[in-house]
Amino acid sequence: MNYRIFICYDGARYKGWQRLKNTDNTVQGKLENTISRLLKQPIEIIGASRTDAGVHAKNQIANFKTDQILDELDFCNQLNKYLPEDISIIKIEVASDDYHARFHSNKKAYQYRIWKASYPPVFEREYVLKYEGSPLNIELIKKASELLLGTHDFKGFCTDKTKKSTVRNIYNIEVIETSEEIQILVEGDGFLYNMVRIIVGTLIEVGAGKRTPESIKRILETGDRSIAGETAPAKGLTLFKIYSEK
Amino acid sequence: MNYRIFICYDGARYKGWQRLKNTDNTVQGKLENTISRLLKQPIEIIGASRTDAGVHAKNQIANFKTDQILDELDFCNQLNKYLPEDISIIKIEVASDDYHARFHSNKKAYQYRIWKASYPPVFEREYVLKYEGSPLNIELIKKASELLLGTHDFKGFCTDKTKKSTVRNIYNIEVIETSEEIQILVEGDGFLYNMVRIIVGTLIEVGAGKRTPESIKRILETGDRSIAGETAPAKGLTLFKIYSEK
Repeated sequence: MNYRIFICYDGARYKGWQRLKNTDNTVQGKLENTISRLLKQPIEIIGASRTDAGVHAKNQIANFKTDQILDELDFCNQLNKYLPEDISIIKIEVASDDYHARFHSNKKAYQYRIWKASYPPVFEREYVLKYEGSPLNIELIKKASELLLGTHDFKGFCTDKTKKSTVRNIYNIEVIETSEEIQILVEGDGFLYNMVRIIVGTLIEVGAGKRTPESIKRILETGDRSIAGETAPAKGLTLFKIYSEK
Repeated sequence: MNYRIFICYDGARYKGWQRLKNTDNTVQGKLENTISRLLKQPIEIIGASRTDAGVHAKNQIANFKTDQILDELDFCNQLNKYLPEDISIIKIEVASDDYHARFHSNKKAYQYRIWKASYPPVFEREYVLKYEGSPLNIELIKKASELLLGTHDFKGFCTDKTKKSTVRNIYNIEVIETSEEIQILVEGDGFLYNMVRIIVGTLIEVGAGKRTPESIKRILETGDRSIAGETAPAKGLTLFKIYSEK
């Protein structure tokens, strides 16, 4: 049996999604340990997106295989009983045998929240970047974000020294301003290591007037990480939605 | 000089708004200590609403007097620098000499959030009641809430054994349902000790089919606390807005 699970988590306490050798303090680690204990067999789960340390998720998707037939609702309740309160299983459902959470995710949306109000955030304090620089010009941010749309080599917007392809497709970037914050929603077919956070860090510098919207072009052309903006802090980032093929 | 301040706080860590003798772990206590230290004189602040231990506030109002003339924006920033991160000063402004935050608040709105989704809340976990009983019927809750509207003696919806008047006026009760939660917004001229929490506890019993909407009438008529519902937990309650006369 192949099961798909939908997961919500507050990433503040965790060293990211992906299981690590020296600690079980990752979201994947917590989930695998809890599922394995309940099913009394070692379970490996595959996540759709590897969120960094400190990054949150509203709706992560993962799958795992077992030879046991589960009552989905009952098993979901069991899991929620044993998981810490900053990880919640929204739903469990049967998936087709060949379903693979990562390979079959063809679109992902990440949200970044920038707190711009002059007073500190209270209820949002763990989920936003508290911005204290010069006022951000939304029109400049929107202009710069348009230059990122489409298929590009995002090597300059990535911390990795990977030899794999760094070409990705960004479908949409939405910039929303409220009285207290600016939200940037980025939708793409996939994201490189730190990619959304470097995009946001660069857009903030554009909004603050520290660089032109057009400076985006040279980062894309040269693939030079050193001329892009700073990596924005993890706490403002949330994996918002994953669109699955099957 | 008389200053009005607008305050946002996460009440989880505090023993309520009101200063207590044996601890400074109240919101008023934290504010008075910080303001007094900054102004180098003992300051007493008057809050519009005395929130219980564990209750939050999106927009509490208070005032304090000093013979010093303050740069409002600068003093607000100073305060936010020294206050803990679960208390935030939204704004400070000059008020008329006779302004009194409690006496001049003629309307208050409290919001109560009931988490009804089958999975546990993550980002909202400190700010909602996790409801796990039988499904809540919104129409019954609305019907019952209408019986509370207007001027009544709310003695049966109060924990106090006060000899003062327990007559209050509820202007409006709004019941909003989303896929994950039920929000109850109660607006009135003032609230007795635990009043909103007992109202919500009673409305939950109505929604769960444990009592009829009409049972509200007898609580109002008799003033008998023992026939009203349970006091709903503090964590789901937030002082939402205060309407001030001047």
